[in-house]
Amino acid sequence: MQAAAAAVHRPHLLGAYPGGGRARRPSSTVRMALREDGPSVAIVGATGAVGQEFLRVISSRGFPYRSLRLLASERSAGKRLPFEGQEYTVQDLAAPGAFDGVDIALFSAGGGVSRAHAPAAVASGAVVVDNSSAFRMDPEVPLVIPEVNPEAMAHVRLGKGAIVANPNCSTIICLMAATPLHRHAKVVRMVVSTYQAASGAGAAAMEELKLQTQEYAFNIFSHNAPIVENGYNEEEMKMVKETRKIWNDKDVKVTATCIRVPVMRAHAESVNLQFEKPLDEDTAREILRAAEGVTIIDDRASNRFPTPLEVSDKDDVAVGRIRQDLSQDDNKGLDIFVCGDQIRKGAALNAVQIAEMLLK
Amino acid sequence: MQAAAAAVHRPHLLGAYPGGGRARRPSSTVRMALREDGPSVAIVGATGAVGQEFLRVISSRGFPYRSLRLLASERSAGKRLPFEGQEYTVQDLAAPGAFDGVDIALFSAGGGVSRAHAPAAVASGAVVVDNSSAFRMDPEVPLVIPEVNPEAMAHVRLGKGAIVANPNCSTIICLMAATPLHRHAKVVRMVVSTYQAASGAGAAAMEELKLQTQEYAFNIFSHNAPIVENGYNEEEMKMVKETRKIWNDKDVKVTATCIRVPVMRAHAESVNLQFEKPLDEDTAREILRAAEGVTIIDDRASNRFPTPLEVSDKDDVAVGRIRQDLSQDDNKGLDIFVCGDQIRKGAALNAVQIAEMLLK
Repeated sequence: MQAAAAAVHRPHLLGAYPGGGRARRPSSTVRMALREDGPSVAIVGATGAVGQEFLRVISSRGFPYRSLRLLASERSAGKRLPFEGQEYTVQDLAAPGAFDGVDIALFSAGGGVSRAHAPAAVASGAVVVDNSSAFRMDPEVPLVIPEVNPEAMAHVRLGKGAIVANPNCSTIICLMAATPLHRHAKVVRMVVSTYQAASGAGAAAMEELKLQTQEYAFNIFSHNAPIVENGYNEEEMKMVKETRKIWNDKDVKVTATCIRVPVMRAHAESVNLQFEKPLDEDTAREILRAAEGVTIIDDRASNRFPTPLEVSDKDDVAVGRIRQDLSQDDNKGLDIFVCGDQIRKGAALNAVQIAEMLLK
Repeated sequence: MQAAAAAVHRPHLLGAYPGGGRARRPSSTVRMALREDGPSVAIVGATGAVGQEFLRVISSRGFPYRSLRLLASERSAGKRLPFEGQEYTVQDLAAPGAFDGVDIALFSAGGGVSRAHAPAAVASGAVVVDNSSAFRMDPEVPLVIPEVNPEAMAHVRLGKGAIVANPNCSTIICLMAATPLHRHAKVVRMVVSTYQAASGAGAAAMEELKLQTQEYAFNIFSHNAPIVENGYNEEEMKMVKETRKIWNDKDVKVTATCIRVPVMRAHAESVNLQFEKPLDEDTAREILRAAEGVTIIDDRASNRFPTPLEVSDKDDVAVGRIRQDLSQDDNKGLDIFVCGDQIRKGAALNAVQIAEMLLK
């Protein structure tokens, strides 16, 4: 984690975008990352759950920024949001010049908004880190988990417009654990079953769950994403296709069954791995222990393993139930159970880490 | 389902066991299955959740009985339980003569009670249908799902003491769906991830869940069964070993990850199947449509698939998300999602069906 930048108040650097984004209640005591040498950052979808998490992650990691612009749909424009002792006015992302002077634009306002407005940001010279599915499978767009495939965005430079896509939350959480093992023994097939939080289905679903009403009450159900022609839902197909792209391996075989469970936050995944080369359990544990962004919780004696509650609001993906798969011979199979905060590492944190790579 | 027997009041047939089990409030109007030609039935663990479900299933299926004896631990002895218009006094299962004259004894009071008392019942000439894990892997004891392997208990006869074991709930629910497909294309490997209800963890867990307190609140966690040396928990090993025994196939490869979810009743399972012979999705659907005890809920257009809520208190196991596994070639893989009531088909119903086979 980066050290937080010194708390410096530079109101003249804010409000570069005419008519808004100004600091209203300057404070010099709060910890902040406002720095003259930082990039100019825009957050698109600033009022949404992931947009808000972008701000928390920027603050907690001390991600440096010279100026900050909060953008959202016309409906939210004019709202005031406090951040690091300043108050920002949310701007209409469709207004002319909305991306003028922006170095990095973090998008999380759905695929439609990304498709409509990311090109304008790119044309303005911004690097867009897009949290939607709009550009993920575009061959020109790198799909990046910084711990997994940083090389995919090696050609992307600040000051030259480009899009980098953030993978789907379930894919990120799965691959954070699977990739270190894949590097060692090459995954040839992966069977994933997910246990996904209601928060991914939006605020209304969380409210339903809290009140234990309707479908979210003490029930689980197949993920609400539409089913495509082959019978998989779109969430499952993301796991299949994104894994191939991120690992740059068209041959890796993946299947997934994505299920929603009555949990507020954080996803869990049961992952069965089939390797090309033998990999014993102890070596797997060593590899995972050394992996960046991964925490092992695997205490068999006290039956303590990862849970969604435990990983909520945490950066690391937690892995446990690490065991040789009894159904595969020659140490070529492994079962693991993975939990990760889908709003943190599954969305906002991963996007901010991508942005951090642009500063290196 | 059998038709309910005529409602006949025969109090003289009750109370065969000295000192108890007498009808106290006879009624001739209630639907009941009390029949002179039925067997004498004892229920061990009558005050527990599965014991209570035994009674409901006996009643709803019109399972015939000449007399009924409710047995439980000394602690519960003396309790009065109404059933089909009669009132029964719970007897101490450890009392001498507790199984005298009993034809069929349905045990569901834990492995310790089964180990301690099933031999006495067998010595008395009773056929014990045991819902615990005590005898499941005993090579002398058939492990039976009536729709799957009725032949395994072909040699068991009323009047000759014997034990028939009821498989674990997760195994029953999985194999109800997998067996018809196995018969057609031979399953060579199966990867199961479960979503199990809190009710399996006892009344205290259900209360915790209802109050959304402690570990059951909006959280999921690895099954609470102890972990064995290979890293699997006992629930998972039941799936592995029981499948081999029920299918009489020592070579079938099975792995399982068993997880508890905040659901009151009914288990769900994501099941990935690998076949020896090709099996396309349409054929699989036809096979499942024809399978006894299986209901297909697989409406892709409206995203309607099996859920625990929907199968609660239902006899059938529900199957959906039937699709060709993208990660396997030559139509040799299938993904399905299965839900079943673990107290009904996963326990009491299956045991009563085993008892019904003894009457054929």
